[in-house]
Amino acid sequence: MLVCSRCGRKYPEDFRLTCECGGTLTVARELPADFSGGLRNYPDMRRYLAFIPVSEEHLPRLVPSITPVSRLKVNGVTALFKLEYLQPTGSFKDRGTYVTVAKLKGESITEVVLDSSGNAAISLAAFSRMEGIRAHLFVPEHTSPGKLALLRRLGAELHVVEGDRMAVHREAVSFSKEKGIAYVSHWLNPYFLEGTKVAALEAYEQAGVPDYVISPAGSGTLFLGLWKGFSELRSMGEIDELPTFVAVQAEGYESLCERSTRKSHLAEGIAITEPPRLEEMEAVLDETGGTCVSVGDPGIERALRWLWERGFPVEPTSATVLAALWELRKRSFIRSGSSVLLPLTGSGLKGVEGI
Amino acid sequence: MLVCSRCGRKYPEDFRLTCECGGTLTVARELPADFSGGLRNYPDMRRYLAFIPVSEEHLPRLVPSITPVSRLKVNGVTALFKLEYLQPTGSFKDRGTYVTVAKLKGESITEVVLDSSGNAAISLAAFSRMEGIRAHLFVPEHTSPGKLALLRRLGAELHVVEGDRMAVHREAVSFSKEKGIAYVSHWLNPYFLEGTKVAALEAYEQAGVPDYVISPAGSGTLFLGLWKGFSELRSMGEIDELPTFVAVQAEGYESLCERSTRKSHLAEGIAITEPPRLEEMEAVLDETGGTCVSVGDPGIERALRWLWERGFPVEPTSATVLAALWELRKRSFIRSGSSVLLPLTGSGLKGVEGI
Ligand SMILES: [Zn+2]
Ligand SMILES: [Zn+2]
Repeated sequence: MLVCSRCGRKYPEDFRLTCECGGTLTVARELPADFSGGLRNYPDMRRYLAFIPVSEEHLPRLVPSITPVSRLKVNGVTALFKLEYLQPTGSFKDRGTYVTVAKLKGESITEVVLDSSGNAAISLAAFSRMEGIRAHLFVPEHTSPGKLALLRRLGAELHVVEGDRMAVHREAVSFSKEKGIAYVSHWLNPYFLEGTKVAALEAYEQAGVPDYVISPAGSGTLFLGLWKGFSELRSMGEIDELPTFVAVQAEGYESLCERSTRKSHLAEGIAITEPPRLEEMEAVLDETGGTCVSVGDPGIERALRWLWERGFPVEPTSATVLAALWELRKRSFIRSGSSVLLPLTGSGLKGVEGI
Repeated sequence: MLVCSRCGRKYPEDFRLTCECGGTLTVARELPADFSGGLRNYPDMRRYLAFIPVSEEHLPRLVPSITPVSRLKVNGVTALFKLEYLQPTGSFKDRGTYVTVAKLKGESITEVVLDSSGNAAISLAAFSRMEGIRAHLFVPEHTSPGKLALLRRLGAELHVVEGDRMAVHREAVSFSKEKGIAYVSHWLNPYFLEGTKVAALEAYEQAGVPDYVISPAGSGTLFLGLWKGFSELRSMGEIDELPTFVAVQAEGYESLCERSTRKSHLAEGIAITEPPRLEEMEAVLDETGGTCVSVGDPGIERALRWLWERGFPVEPTSATVLAALWELRKRSFIRSGSSVLLPLTGSGLKGVEGI
């Protein structure tokens, strides 16, 4: 079922974005009695099918990978870089899209509206068309030329909107209402988190429970997904304690951290000022004793160069987690000798000329 | 040990490119008695460590994925698209590079020379630097701007050469001799095939033995690797018969098929007129009752569009295998109802603006 994070009201597991009270929804369902017993024998994301609320017959033919983890020593800690950019369209969003498209197929929904800063749109374009779903994709005009070219070649119905990320959001919602086409905001969509949570299940199998998770937290789709994955491992009795969660935000776009006057131009994936799941993110920081870190372009650039020169060709938003790790080691928030999971969220190959 | 494919002479398993007779070398060694028993518990390429001639302590920290297989009906056959473009640097070359870098580390080689049409250079740039290996990379000047930008950002020592692919090759060899730096041609390097063969081991676990394998065959690093993987499965008694192998070449650059007068401009990854492992490729076609198909730019473009619109953002060279499948269905070489493994070799995200 779906449960409202604000009033606790319950709904059946249909495709639905918000509670009647306006609150956000998450999926709550009975999990397999034991984690290992629930694992399937696929060498891809379907390994975790028993923990995802979709039926196998509706799965898209394009399947996300189990992404590798690279273990490196960084400033006295063990950094576990999880290469989420190695998904079919080059970002972790493919996990959420995979589950969402399966759910849409299950409900015979064949036309949808989505707004995105780029990656989520690319992901939906790639996964939906082959499954017979027509997707109207709303993206900001400042989206990199590489990403726009990609969207066109994937055969997407593209709507390029003037203005900032919030303007794109408003435009998509009004188009969806006007045309009566389902709006599948990945910010709100509870099934999206059911996909991103799998990154935590994988990371657990690959490297156990890390002491810290440092995740970008714009809309919170990855941050909350990672938390949900580890939480469900605890519910199943597989682990005892959650990692400490660190939310990374971009200067000028903070919602959890204090708002800066400087503005990041590089971290386009988390340039989101009013995330609808803000209270849920706050709850994760409270529950795990975590913190929020805001990073600016100089730190992002330094981290980006560091990652590329070590063989990780990621996009700037991905580098925010390393900039945050450096900052938290300086502040001594993160203990020497600890292990830190850092998802690298998006491929830098998409817009290489633009950087 | 290493065995010469021409005179049969044997060498110890050191880093060595050719036999004294000039013949090409391949690795021959005792395999685990049984395939399943040799599998390791990693959800990445290390799962197949027991079948690769390197020791675990020398493995690079960047690890290739187990790539997903997407199963689609195409012209009456089951197409098994193996998404080799989802490797760390966006191509199957990462498999060969991974094993090669491990071998170089094992022999304490810290400076090397490589020539490439782009992807192999990108791969070596990404894997070598973090492992303390300085790589001199020779690429043709017509390499796409996206790929050149990528190489620069990965911190590579770049040598851009005027002229065709063979000119680049000659330049790299002469630089290596002049400076006394090891030349690691992926065309000759026997350890490269030890990496690419793992794609076959994975595909076998994911989908059994296909009736056909359709692979690009320029230098033959993937084609021969796939053949070696299935052959070793047969040696271990895991499978009884090999798939029928189809070699795909580009118009104007044929070495196995008859040379066309037209020239492909799109299939840059297989624009190789004099592959040193030509006789080995011929032997695979003979042994498996296979054939060679030459494809031109109109067919490649059609196949490329088909793939992108189904959510596979690959580069043109990758689309050659689909163009070949269409052609072989027309010729009735491939039976209706059969299963066909088609590796999609390289990411199209790298040069999206240039296409
Ligand atoms: Zn409510
Ligand atoms: Zn010889």
